Amino acid sequence: MKIEHIGIAVSDMEQAVKTYEQLLQTPCYKKEQVASEGVETAFFQLADSKIELLEASNEASPIAKFLSKNGPGFHHVAFEVENMEAEIERLQAAGFQLIHEIAKDGADNKRIAFLHPKSTGSLLVEICQEKSA
Amino acid sequence: MKIEHIGIAVSDMEQAVKTYEQLLQTPCYKKEQVASEGVETAFFQLADSKIELLEASNEASPIAKFLSKNGPGFHHVAFEVENMEAEIERLQAAGFQLIHEIAKDGADNKRIAFLHPKSTGSLLVEICQEKSA
Repeated sequence: MKIEHIGIAVSDMEQAVKTYEQLLQTPCYKKEQVASEGVETAFFQLADSKIELLEASNEASPIAKFLSKNGPGFHHVAFEVENMEAEIERLQAAGFQLIHEIAKDGADNKRIAFLHPKSTGSLLVEICQEKSA
Repeated sequence: MKIEHIGIAVSDMEQAVKTYEQLLQTPCYKKEQVASEGVETAFFQLADSKIELLEASNEASPIAKFLSKNGPGFHHVAFEVENMEAEIERLQAAGFQLIHEIAKDGADNKRIAFLHPKSTGSLLVEICQEKSA
């Protein structure tokens, strides 16, 4: 398991990309819409991990709801796993609550599932696996 | 620059260590008191990065204040840099506000400095460098 990325909710993507390019000293290498989630994403590579900025692309977006409750800032951390199905099963058996009991498509060519923050000490945790080619 | 660790504020260290050992499938490899900050820390290694749990060891601790305002959850992300002084200078010149303009001692044999969340889109960011032997 490794930290695949940290997701950060932003209210102004254009400004945030400028800020993070300066902070991290690396250019945003990819922007991607995830229409099913109402989210626009922007990625920065840092060694073996990524920073993912998340902006709401409509008012029904989970990011819009997050921003209106919490404002911008940390949203989730994603851990890369080798076998989503086995990992979902393992986590459920260990008592963790999955928001998605079946992996779904996410940004960046990944299959993803979120754990309920209730079962992780209030941290929103994603597990993800690269889709096979 | 890489993600050196993610800091997570917890209210019950014993319970949190159990939860994160199960979640991450790796044992806590180190606990360390940072008396100057009123903080107890616990570390987990994930590939090239770490998860750091933070518990307040007294009521004046910044973690106690954070917990009473926000509850447990994400606290900060730390990026490893190669030269603290040069990086502090670079960030200040780029308009970032440093909470610590001079690096100070942190946990895990590191020199650290925090950036003000105001200048990073509300994310608490630490930069850190391993102390030379």
